[in-house]
Amino acid sequence: MAKAITPREENYSEWYLDIVKKANLAANSAVRGCMVIKPYGFGIWERMQRQLDDMFKETGHVNAYFPLFIPKSFLSREAEHVEGFAKECAVVTHHRLMNDPNGGGVVVDPTAKLEEELIVRPTSETIIWHTYRDWITSYRDLPLLINQWANVVRWELRTRLFLRTAEFLWQEGHTAHATAEEALEEALRMQEVYATFAEEYMAMPVLRGVKTANERFAGALDTYTIEALMQDGKALQAGTSHNLGQNFAKAFDVKFSNADNQEEYVYATSWGVSTRLVGGLIMTHSDDEGLVLPPRLAPIQVVIVPIPKPNEALNAKARELMDELKARGVRVSYDDDEKQRPGFKFAENELKGIPVRLGIGQRDLDKGTIEVARRDEKSKSNQPIEGIVDHVVNLLDEIQQNLFDRAVRFREEHTTYVDTFEEFQAVLDRDIPGFVYAHWDGTTETELKIKEMTKATIRCIPHDQPEEEGKCILTGAPSRGRVVFAKAY
Amino acid sequence: MAKAITPREENYSEWYLDIVKKANLAANSAVRGCMVIKPYGFGIWERMQRQLDDMFKETGHVNAYFPLFIPKSFLSREAEHVEGFAKECAVVTHHRLMNDPNGGGVVVDPTAKLEEELIVRPTSETIIWHTYRDWITSYRDLPLLINQWANVVRWELRTRLFLRTAEFLWQEGHTAHATAEEALEEALRMQEVYATFAEEYMAMPVLRGVKTANERFAGALDTYTIEALMQDGKALQAGTSHNLGQNFAKAFDVKFSNADNQEEYVYATSWGVSTRLVGGLIMTHSDDEGLVLPPRLAPIQVVIVPIPKPNEALNAKARELMDELKARGVRVSYDDDEKQRPGFKFAENELKGIPVRLGIGQRDLDKGTIEVARRDEKSKSNQPIEGIVDHVVNLLDEIQQNLFDRAVRFREEHTTYVDTFEEFQAVLDRDIPGFVYAHWDGTTETELKIKEMTKATIRCIPHDQPEEEGKCILTGAPSRGRVVFAKAY
Repeated sequence: MAKAITPREENYSEWYLDIVKKANLAANSAVRGCMVIKPYGFGIWERMQRQLDDMFKETGHVNAYFPLFIPKSFLSREAEHVEGFAKECAVVTHHRLMNDPNGGGVVVDPTAKLEEELIVRPTSETIIWHTYRDWITSYRDLPLLINQWANVVRWELRTRLFLRTAEFLWQEGHTAHATAEEALEEALRMQEVYATFAEEYMAMPVLRGVKTANERFAGALDTYTIEALMQDGKALQAGTSHNLGQNFAKAFDVKFSNADNQEEYVYATSWGVSTRLVGGLIMTHSDDEGLVLPPRLAPIQVVIVPIPKPNEALNAKARELMDELKARGVRVSYDDDEKQRPGFKFAENELKGIPVRLGIGQRDLDKGTIEVARRDEKSKSNQPIEGIVDHVVNLLDEIQQNLFDRAVRFREEHTTYVDTFEEFQAVLDRDIPGFVYAHWDGTTETELKIKEMTKATIRCIPHDQPEEEGKCILTGAPSRGRVVFAKAY
Repeated sequence: MAKAITPREENYSEWYLDIVKKANLAANSAVRGCMVIKPYGFGIWERMQRQLDDMFKETGHVNAYFPLFIPKSFLSREAEHVEGFAKECAVVTHHRLMNDPNGGGVVVDPTAKLEEELIVRPTSETIIWHTYRDWITSYRDLPLLINQWANVVRWELRTRLFLRTAEFLWQEGHTAHATAEEALEEALRMQEVYATFAEEYMAMPVLRGVKTANERFAGALDTYTIEALMQDGKALQAGTSHNLGQNFAKAFDVKFSNADNQEEYVYATSWGVSTRLVGGLIMTHSDDEGLVLPPRLAPIQVVIVPIPKPNEALNAKARELMDELKARGVRVSYDDDEKQRPGFKFAENELKGIPVRLGIGQRDLDKGTIEVARRDEKSKSNQPIEGIVDHVVNLLDEIQQNLFDRAVRFREEHTTYVDTFEEFQAVLDRDIPGFVYAHWDGTTETELKIKEMTKATIRCIPHDQPEEEGKCILTGAPSRGRVVFAKAY
């Protein structure tokens, strides 16, 4: 296979698509905007799913499943919600095809029109809160801590594999609580679960903050977000958690009797991450040679390559190493293709982002050593066979940490504090603009004006930002603290 | 909660729905024919998924994901396939809603009509074989062993929770092979994987056989099936595996160059099981007190109930037991509700089908014993605390085996061999008809006539059926072996 990845410097977005395609992660499908997730890409998503699912369960959540379809009338119940989703949705209007009486193949049967159109879920708050009405009567039924793994559809016009697709896979948590405080706590807890997952598993550092009114989820009181920085200096919203207050409970009339026997509307949260995370993972770590994967999410963590090619002695050694590594929980494979040379295999394994490569050749083995190459630093060294398993296990941890540290450094190098609009514009004009901390007057008007002028949006008002008197970079109006701007995906 | 399950003898189908509802497994939704799978029901499905997924991976398969939507024209490519699925499908025709200019809420935007209608997948052969065209060029690309976990939609008119719903969850394997023999082997291998899963995990014995031409999957050369017998004497098709030959490869023009460098169409299989299995599980084991679950699939295997209610000493003992049981891999919970009495809890835990209940009371503990109740036999006994963990672990295996043995006995008791149509009719007229082995002349005409007269269908031509000269029960024409008839879900 010819390795011809467009370098990042030349064309970042071509580079991204090259990685996705050449590393066999995903492909466009015959259906506009919908992708096919190929086995290797799905293997990464499966590992993400498994880990997140464990974390959701540890925090007391259970899984359930709600219908794919939402009656059209449900969408309208929450006024902002319908604004947010009605403009780009897939609408089911009929339930039968028939042979074209004029001989033109199959056509929609006009007699099979649905009484009420169904929307393919863009998100499930409406159908779920309609259901919760039957499930909640008393404070004893609360909290309800439910998650679902599902596909959703938003009719996006400009799509990009993993980052923005018409259909995508995600999880959506939908919880119900007896008090406003509990709902707020839950929304923040799940933001922190996402942040922990991003940093500890994806090795992708994230800012934790709250969205401005303008960037909020349609129907939420507040949207909490984790924001990551990609290598082209653009931000990626990687996960959001919404405090929905009583909005959906009111729209779907979900009340409970509290401990004092008074009726009250239920408090809600929802939160989700999607296959977009795979895009974020790629853009955080990969390089011009291909994919770079953090060991904790890599479908294959270690590949063993026989040098120059497989033979009985090398196969036996490989089997032995594999058994020992597997016993330590390492996902290892043996590249025993007889037809390809080591150089080709090295390039292939780099392209696939396998964190560690062990080269086993008879001459090295005779000397008691083995070649260990790490993908993250593109470095290699000879290591004694004695203790090699321990070495590899530790190396995987080291690589995981190194990728995170490197991404943190990148973010630090691409984070700028500015006090004037001129400085602001100058940073955004850089090749790699990054996060820009600046004062803003708190109005949607100014926010939109800045977006129009610069394409930068407010990614979040960071949780850890200290109070600081300042003046809005655009209007000069007083501000009490900086917010984070960036161009974004 | 009032426990009022309709007894099976009184009304079997009410009994089934009572179990599904009262054990909190699933509910009807606001969308016609679509169900909500509640957390407890989803917990069972999750365990099924995890186990099947492991078995698929052990047999060399990987997961991937293909689009939810299928372009209408794809369905028509395989003539029998479109016949099979076009009559009941969800058709997406538009991609936007708008505010009704006449003030009637949101309506479909007539300007947002799709150029080609999209069908919500009823099964994915067409979109997948369209994709495989890009993935397969040479015999070196084969076999392709891919599975996907997905939701599918078939616009069923008469639905029943889990057993037949408009939307359901399933897995669908789609494999591509270089030879007809390999495809046949794969189809049979996956039938056997399903049979093993049904028998060893669901404790549900199944017949393995092949479908008649009339009952085949639309577009298959042969459909292999596993058929289980429910407690009302009706059969449930629990999983199917199809040898598709070159039909889909021809319809989507998927060729490969073989080792002799000649172009050939690719050979295919597909195979699937769905949330219908949860319905089969319920109907195989449950009784008039509620759900009965085999330990291997039970979300909770053991429940500890403090008698008469929780206190510090009992809580401490429960924690100790739980820790020890968890260390042995047992899923255990403690029913420490202060408000309910033991009798209520016993009934609740029976309803939920928890295989083993441990009652811990101070008086028993002082005597060094503990009350062990098993759900399958509705029996209880006092057991020494000493060694109780081993006892419970063994008991769970014993219950798993007992449920299977019981179901095998039930099937034996409800399997009849008949040689005349009179006998045949008499068996089918019984309250619990069961499987009927009879001779059939091999024609679709006779098969359909028998179905019309008796509502019984040929469930399969069993793999293990010996050759035997006989005469068709309807036409008297010669037959070489018996087939299995039954009324079916």
